[in-house]
Amino acid sequence: MPYGRIKAASLFDKVTTAEQAAQLFKDGMVVGASGFTKAGDSKVVLDALAKRAAKEAIKITLMTGASLGHDTDAKLASAGALAKRMPFQVDRVLRTAINAGEVLFIDQHLSESAELLHNRCLPPVDIAVIEAAFIEADGSIVPTTSVGNSVTFAALAKRVIIEINTAVPESIYGLHDIFQPDDYPYRNVIPIVAPENRIGRRSIPVDIHKIAAIVFTDIPDSPADVAPPDAKTTAIAGHLLRFFENEVKKGHLTDRLLPLQAGIGKVANAVLSGFGESNFYDLRMFSEVLQDSTFDLLDSGKMSFASASSITVSAPCYERVFGNLQKYKDRIVLRPQNISNTPGLIRRLGVIAINTAIEFDIYGNVNSTHISGTNIMNGIGGSGDFARNAYLSIFVSQAASKDNRISHVLPMVSHVDHTEHDVDILVTDIGLADLRGLAPRERAQAVIDHCVHPDYRDALQSYFDRARQLRGGHTPHLLEEAFSWHTRLRETGSMK
Amino acid sequence: MPYGRIKAASLFDKVTTAEQAAQLFKDGMVVGASGFTKAGDSKVVLDALAKRAAKEAIKITLMTGASLGHDTDAKLASAGALAKRMPFQVDRVLRTAINAGEVLFIDQHLSESAELLHNRCLPPVDIAVIEAAFIEADGSIVPTTSVGNSVTFAALAKRVIIEINTAVPESIYGLHDIFQPDDYPYRNVIPIVAPENRIGRRSIPVDIHKIAAIVFTDIPDSPADVAPPDAKTTAIAGHLLRFFENEVKKGHLTDRLLPLQAGIGKVANAVLSGFGESNFYDLRMFSEVLQDSTFDLLDSGKMSFASASSITVSAPCYERVFGNLQKYKDRIVLRPQNISNTPGLIRRLGVIAINTAIEFDIYGNVNSTHISGTNIMNGIGGSGDFARNAYLSIFVSQAASKDNRISHVLPMVSHVDHTEHDVDILVTDIGLADLRGLAPRERAQAVIDHCVHPDYRDALQSYFDRARQLRGGHTPHLLEEAFSWHTRLRETGSMK
Ligand SMILES: CC(C)(COP(=O)(O)OP(=O)(O)OC[C@H]1O[C@@H](n2cnc3c(N)ncnc32)[C@H](O)[C@@H]1OP(=O)(O)O)[C@@H](O)C(=O)NCCC(=O)NCCS
Ligand SMILES: CC(C)(COP(=O)(O)OP(=O)(O)OC[C@H]1O[C@@H](n2cnc3c(N)ncnc32)[C@H](O)[C@@H]1OP(=O)(O)O)[C@@H](O)C(=O)NCCC(=O)NCCS
Repeated sequence: MPYGRIKAASLFDKVTTAEQAAQLFKDGMVVGASGFTKAGDSKVVLDALAKRAAKEAIKITLMTGASLGHDTDAKLASAGALAKRMPFQVDRVLRTAINAGEVLFIDQHLSESAELLHNRCLPPVDIAVIEAAFIEADGSIVPTTSVGNSVTFAALAKRVIIEINTAVPESIYGLHDIFQPDDYPYRNVIPIVAPENRIGRRSIPVDIHKIAAIVFTDIPDSPADVAPPDAKTTAIAGHLLRFFENEVKKGHLTDRLLPLQAGIGKVANAVLSGFGESNFYDLRMFSEVLQDSTFDLLDSGKMSFASASSITVSAPCYERVFGNLQKYKDRIVLRPQNISNTPGLIRRLGVIAINTAIEFDIYGNVNSTHISGTNIMNGIGGSGDFARNAYLSIFVSQAASKDNRISHVLPMVSHVDHTEHDVDILVTDIGLADLRGLAPRERAQAVIDHCVHPDYRDALQSYFDRARQLRGGHTPHLLEEAFSWHTRLRETGSMK
Repeated sequence: MPYGRIKAASLFDKVTTAEQAAQLFKDGMVVGASGFTKAGDSKVVLDALAKRAAKEAIKITLMTGASLGHDTDAKLASAGALAKRMPFQVDRVLRTAINAGEVLFIDQHLSESAELLHNRCLPPVDIAVIEAAFIEADGSIVPTTSVGNSVTFAALAKRVIIEINTAVPESIYGLHDIFQPDDYPYRNVIPIVAPENRIGRRSIPVDIHKIAAIVFTDIPDSPADVAPPDAKTTAIAGHLLRFFENEVKKGHLTDRLLPLQAGIGKVANAVLSGFGESNFYDLRMFSEVLQDSTFDLLDSGKMSFASASSITVSAPCYERVFGNLQKYKDRIVLRPQNISNTPGLIRRLGVIAINTAIEFDIYGNVNSTHISGTNIMNGIGGSGDFARNAYLSIFVSQAASKDNRISHVLPMVSHVDHTEHDVDILVTDIGLADLRGLAPRERAQAVIDHCVHPDYRDALQSYFDRARQLRGGHTPHLLEEAFSWHTRLRETGSMK
């Protein structure tokens, strides 16, 4: 056993197996676990809990940073171990259980879960499960590839289980910036004015007496699936890059732009990759997850610094980063998600936020979460934290999918996550609509002219024209027809 | 002429009439005018512009802080003087013109208009029209009963017209706290950690050479219509006060609560009045407008301090405040609206936000702006700034209106301004639903059990039950029926 990773000898007798640690959970408990976009999650304790739950009646409320890797959510859901789950997930099996009403899911802004816990607007956390690179002499935890909500879980949980992951080198120490705002009414300024500012400690404080079990693992994070750019994502990236170039020409931005945030998925990756071929330089990120493209930009010298809450990369990129950690250490930082995503910092830094939509409508309302208004896909994640408070709020989507049977540009979205008030720029593979300074009727025409797939353009124009003529109003709509594209899809398999 | 109100003698020759000043406007110009919830608005120059526009073809884009008094918006709209209007209005005539498509309205978060101007995401301001109590020796402007966006307009406009209002005593000097964040990428911390912190100057800086005209007036602000509490608003206030008492019992809050924000209208006034009879003390406000009830609480000693962007009170209350200004001066402060409403401060201070909804739905989505999805009422105002970033986000509404032909609690709102992610507590005269920590299916049942008017309870339960059975999903909906209550109202005059 690599006891060298426990710098507090008094904790040696807490070392146990995952199975033993999993015995600490009781039916009805609230569990807070590390893990953000599949990085730095529990590899063995939650897995052991799933195995236990397959045989016994035990259901917990599980809170995490964001999504977990290793199909842990699928295993827990299949075993019936989840009563409630928050604030985010991306798992196919869990999603099915949620949509069947078997697991209750709370879809939260990623900056807010820690707030709700600190403010006691959620039930108290019984057990925290936190992945660590090592444990400091004072019992504090040096986290691995994500910070997420672990600082809050460690502070508030009654007991703490630590998974020491020896696949992560101890030299990761120093990559994290651990800071927590004070509780109300004593909250002070978060003194960050640039992505590279470091304001906190290097390990997560924890009351050493709360540490109930320590388990060793050597299982690496699940790798990110990095899809190669395709015709659509390349087109979207092209539209966006030309837009930024124009903003610079107009004097709105410099070639350094402003700190970038990019959501999960292949479009975000394609857009960031596009910067590699551009004239922009000295770029910075203030985001929630660092993906392969971030490291490409750091390596090519285009990007100077990147701040986030997790590193989620492909297996080869993981090798590159952790084989050369020293090289990156003064150019990246991982923060708690209530710092990486906090509204005030996003506004203060003037972040350019690029997120993916499931669908958007002619007035610029965006649906990030639901298929046809009812079934959840993943969750809002950090998109709301960023879109609402950003300098520029950009949403991207393919114009149509499934042999163009589905249009992602619609008369009215079937679920609203981002309102017209929070959306500046919409981009599809067809083109880009700049909605800044436009009233709803102007926005609609811009979206029809620039974003919708040609197969749907006439139908969308017809909807808008008829809504204006028959109903009028600030935001013309025919309520009885607004969802007809969605109902047609359900009935005929196509929106056409 | 009260030249004593101009402390810079070099400006004496700028004094002119409103009619002359109105000649400075040209067709197509962008005008930024003071005024926030009818307070501190232009009394004569915009009026003279409306008269001019009735005879000549002249159309402007008009930006303000928020709403104007003295029917100025009605006069401008009737004269055809408005091409575009932002970010807020409450005028019946203007609203009709907007809904007819004659005036283009941009409905903005009140914190964001100044951002958009500073970031040059809106066309540049040609002329600013700003009401002043007096002009300082350096040309800077001491504002009157609101600050709104005047600091931004004065900084960015090519020319500035000042209306000196002698109805406002010069002793108002010191009531304002004038601070502006730096432009990107140089923005620093806004160093406010409590509502009473003062961080800025006492007058609005302006380049003295830009001052193009000075006009005198003595017309007071339009008074607020303060409706007396009625059975419904009293019931809503009662539910909310009992909720706060319970939060204190649970140890979530102390009897001092946290800084309060209250939206416009009689419900907010009734809720605040309710605090007068409560055990809460040492209350503070961090809001955008101070209403009669604020001064009642200050007078009774229940409230220690109130921060906002304007004072909008009834005529008797106005007498009380301005007859005793010295008494209030260290207990209230007026700030620019991009400070009073800025996301980071609302989160840092932990504001309790209470705003009014036009309608809300079973999942907790709120419509603050549109009647039946198409016609604008007023605008989102500051409700989004506060709801998204608050410690607690509360929305109130009557359960039903117009002899109960209209239900304000619905299967699906016809327009979304605040998503389920941003809404904690919903209150009607029927009761209160605490949605914190609830998944959508739980939220729906809580809203049906506590908020809907009894006349609509069975129908709403039936919708939810059938949606769960027929469609299922994380957020069960029957898209083809979701707006049927609205279409029924249009066709039959009742939602029943
Ligand atoms: C929105 C989000 C799901 C998009 O993911 P993506 O994989 O890039 O998007 P795609 O457009 O390729 O996929 C969406 C899927 O929904 C389908 N879809 C879209 N609209 C649909 C509709 N009306 N009916 C049925 N299916 C629909 C698409 O066909 C596609 O299906 P597929 O996966 O079988 O190909 C993802 O970005 C997300 O979860 N975002 C929310 C969280 C977030 O933004 N976080 C940001 C900070 S990390
Ligand atoms: C939402 C808002 C309009 C509510 O104002 P209010 O006067 O207190 O609300 P009421 O419920 O009494 O009035 C709403 C009106 O809409 C009507 N209405 C509501 N739903 C309706 C529907 N579906 N169809 C037709 N009419 C409807 C009501 O019957 C009522 O009509 P009335 O004025 O003729 O009585 C107002 O608070 C507002 O503009 N809010 C947005 C801005 C904001 O919140 N700012 C906060 C910071 S200042």
